[in-house]
Amino acid sequence: MLVALAQLNPTIGALEDNSRKIAHAYQQAIKKNAELVIFSELALCGYPPRDLLSYKSFLQKERELLNKQIIPLTSGDNPPIIVGANFEEDGKLFNTALIIENGAVKSVHKKTLLPDYDVFDESRYYSPAGEQSIVSVNNIPFALTVCEDIWNDRNFFAKPLYDVDPLHKLFSAKPGILINLSASPYHRGKLALRNNLLSYLAKKYACGIFYLNQVGGNDDLIFDGCSLIYNCDGQLIYKARSFEEDLIFFDTDNLFNSTVKKVALPEEDIGLIASALTLGLKDFVTKTGFKKVVIGLSGGIDSAVVAVLAVKALGAENVLGVMMPSVYSSEHSLLDAVKLADNLHVNHRIISIEEVFQAYLGSLNKDGEALLDLAEENVQSRIRGNILMHIANREGYLTLVTGNRSELAVGYCTLYGDMAGALAPLADLSKSEVYTLAQHFNQEAPSAVIPINSIVKPPSAELRPNQKDEDSLPPYNILDPILELYLKEQMGASEIIDRGYNANTVNRVIKMVNRAEFKRKQSAPGLRVSSFAFGLGRRMPISGNTKWNW
Amino acid sequence: MLVALAQLNPTIGALEDNSRKIAHAYQQAIKKNAELVIFSELALCGYPPRDLLSYKSFLQKERELLNKQIIPLTSGDNPPIIVGANFEEDGKLFNTALIIENGAVKSVHKKTLLPDYDVFDESRYYSPAGEQSIVSVNNIPFALTVCEDIWNDRNFFAKPLYDVDPLHKLFSAKPGILINLSASPYHRGKLALRNNLLSYLAKKYACGIFYLNQVGGNDDLIFDGCSLIYNCDGQLIYKARSFEEDLIFFDTDNLFNSTVKKVALPEEDIGLIASALTLGLKDFVTKTGFKKVVIGLSGGIDSAVVAVLAVKALGAENVLGVMMPSVYSSEHSLLDAVKLADNLHVNHRIISIEEVFQAYLGSLNKDGEALLDLAEENVQSRIRGNILMHIANREGYLTLVTGNRSELAVGYCTLYGDMAGALAPLADLSKSEVYTLAQHFNQEAPSAVIPINSIVKPPSAELRPNQKDEDSLPPYNILDPILELYLKEQMGASEIIDRGYNANTVNRVIKMVNRAEFKRKQSAPGLRVSSFAFGLGRRMPISGNTKWNW
Repeated sequence: MLVALAQLNPTIGALEDNSRKIAHAYQQAIKKNAELVIFSELALCGYPPRDLLSYKSFLQKERELLNKQIIPLTSGDNPPIIVGANFEEDGKLFNTALIIENGAVKSVHKKTLLPDYDVFDESRYYSPAGEQSIVSVNNIPFALTVCEDIWNDRNFFAKPLYDVDPLHKLFSAKPGILINLSASPYHRGKLALRNNLLSYLAKKYACGIFYLNQVGGNDDLIFDGCSLIYNCDGQLIYKARSFEEDLIFFDTDNLFNSTVKKVALPEEDIGLIASALTLGLKDFVTKTGFKKVVIGLSGGIDSAVVAVLAVKALGAENVLGVMMPSVYSSEHSLLDAVKLADNLHVNHRIISIEEVFQAYLGSLNKDGEALLDLAEENVQSRIRGNILMHIANREGYLTLVTGNRSELAVGYCTLYGDMAGALAPLADLSKSEVYTLAQHFNQEAPSAVIPINSIVKPPSAELRPNQKDEDSLPPYNILDPILELYLKEQMGASEIIDRGYNANTVNRVIKMVNRAEFKRKQSAPGLRVSSFAFGLGRRMPISGNTKWNW
Repeated sequence: MLVALAQLNPTIGALEDNSRKIAHAYQQAIKKNAELVIFSELALCGYPPRDLLSYKSFLQKERELLNKQIIPLTSGDNPPIIVGANFEEDGKLFNTALIIENGAVKSVHKKTLLPDYDVFDESRYYSPAGEQSIVSVNNIPFALTVCEDIWNDRNFFAKPLYDVDPLHKLFSAKPGILINLSASPYHRGKLALRNNLLSYLAKKYACGIFYLNQVGGNDDLIFDGCSLIYNCDGQLIYKARSFEEDLIFFDTDNLFNSTVKKVALPEEDIGLIASALTLGLKDFVTKTGFKKVVIGLSGGIDSAVVAVLAVKALGAENVLGVMMPSVYSSEHSLLDAVKLADNLHVNHRIISIEEVFQAYLGSLNKDGEALLDLAEENVQSRIRGNILMHIANREGYLTLVTGNRSELAVGYCTLYGDMAGALAPLADLSKSEVYTLAQHFNQEAPSAVIPINSIVKPPSAELRPNQKDEDSLPPYNILDPILELYLKEQMGASEIIDRGYNANTVNRVIKMVNRAEFKRKQSAPGLRVSSFAFGLGRRMPISGNTKWNW
């Protein structure tokens, strides 16, 4: 049986657009003689739909489109469809895979394991399946599962998260093929994890596997696609594109044909992160109805990297760079920023913040003299934020935030200032990773795109004379690993100190992270590329944060 | 048996402070001959602890304090304690009630029903209890439950949320007393709901009920306390204070004594909302380590009401009002704002935004002439936000946001402008409720605190000549009910139109609400007093929001 896997990029809640996409992919697939066409988890509504699921009318519209536009595709002798969709039964909602055949829903396969960790909230919306069963299409039996249901093997995982393993029971009937509809967001290391698990499962159950993943950015999450096909020896024998839509075809017979060539997994390098961020940026901008972005270019490395990403995602003609020098800006900063804009062929404007800053000093300080305190550093940053938002509001740009994760974690950033904007593309990259990405961009271009000076000079906010990041923060090569242990590994102070870090530094960093929780609550969404988590992935209280000392 | 109910105000994650509070209340209770002292759900860590629970070291510290400071209290013949605490077993975490007797944990009572709706995320952290059993203290048997476990009666609720009802099984042994440790946040209507349920359960199971609730604000949630005691005829016979700590005593014999007098539930009026907001404001400010607040006083009703609340919560000496007039400010605005400050005896400053605004025009517009577009309205609002933040940053104030829910819902507010600040006390009050609250404040004072002019003049943002809210929005008496149907009842457009509202208006309002999702993602926490939900209670995507038309 020739199976088509439609790896599509849905927009959350854009039911009509998504439905059209599904119908279009189906038509393409049957032109190429597909005998079964498969779509990913919740393909019609897009994943994650979140509280859209609380609206009955939303679920009704999904059902209506399914009935009017998807199910009829399969009428007569047209090939069947497998598609992820919401399904209501007895007042409960299920996340399901539907098999649609001959113009009707033939069977409903409910998800059993509902993830509630990290950014996921499925128990908020769904009830778990009671039982699952094997199904067949064209007389070929297979186990049909949705995402998390294959992620609880008791031998593969040292600590399985759930009490049941749906595969264990499903494979008692030895179906020979496993189909999994997923919406699995990318983060660094995810590819290898998926590959290891899928290869393990194929061998364990002696089954071929069709693993179909969603592609595209939706808010902070970036789905990488990269759908995978394994033979029954656990070898990867086909893969779809990463970070792009794809329609791939594979004959079920070849799952059991040992002469079919193996393929390699994409390499987990900085290039993959660059592709993830580019897609995430592009989709955020276009899926919120924008076309062009405005970026404050400081001459520093963060804004340079954001500008390169924006040009890759949207084209140079849709990117505007704004330089906003002050008396504290270093000589080179403006030159570096202009050089970057020229290298990228993006338009730029130079708007000094000096006049406005002086007006603030005149309004707020005795004699209008600068006091050079933190409040004045923040005012400068906020003037820049306001100028970018002014351009955005007047001319229809979306403002990008240029800060990185290291800064955001410790609150070394100004609320309503450099934090102002609709999306923070680097919010999940450590300062060290920003450097790696900058070098990657310079290496892949014929000549350096990002001025070398932006890379080699010591990082500075340039909000007071001769300021350097290291005046306020531990060096990034100390800060970043502490942040990793506190935020990603979720260790307490004493565990981190036991790893050999200076106790004062550790306590200081943790205090800064805790105090900055209120800033992150008001921060723009970031693009997620690690298993760190801010946003909905990290749900910390604010009250009491000065008293957390464990 | 004389039972003491300690209705305490914990701070989330402030384990040592909370532990001291518990020990102190215990000592007070035994001085008055209590034979059993009860504390609320998760009394040691405070509710909701959220992702603090992901830190092993946090759970260890809680356990350590329990072992060192709480459990030893009961050694020898000292009376036993019932306290809500986290409990780890076989790698799983449970939300439990512990019975502590003679210096040891006597039994552990796990919560079965884990709420995942609205602001709750318990499945993210906890495993459900397998089974529950009756326990006795001083030979008096009772059913001991945690919060949600009493909220699934199949006869009381038309649509129970869970498949099991823990009480049904527990009461097969007819224990005669039900104890429930809760952390139940206040919202309008909650009192009556609790009363109806508890009264129903007391009658159904012929049991007396001790219902102990947490009190205090924690971020957006305000716990009202108001712990309740019911006799076995379902009559309310004792209640603790609302919105204050309390330590109440009640003899179990009197649960079955029909001569004990009934007491009345507090009335659900605007005064209760005022108390809730006052406590929420006070606790947010103090629990985040602040003492004093700064408020932009526009002369309008919202900022006036926030100022009154702040004075009630923190005292006039801890409130600073800042008037920031522009050329578009009406004649009366400044006078009204100054009058308010005088009435409240709060300090005020007048800082014109004109000089800074002109500097922006000079930097951003040709010839420095105003264009009077939306971008310039936003700049004015952002200058005000920046001035408040400058004062806050320099002088250690916490900035309060003055906007109401009607504005926030439709995005009639400026990101980084009037939305700037750490807490939005009115974020869950409709414009109509703000008026009611203003009138309430004026009635309870000997003379009007809020200038009548602030109440009677048509609402205006005063960002362009002769601007009125109704130029941009439907009248509030149309807008508010549509918002209620869309946001609270979660109806779709056609359902709302079916209720008799103009289709264009409904579609326009829904579009505004959807488009404003990105603003709310970056808004300050609000104080929750309704069953509307923003913040963690409403988790909507941003991507795709221009395409939602169901």
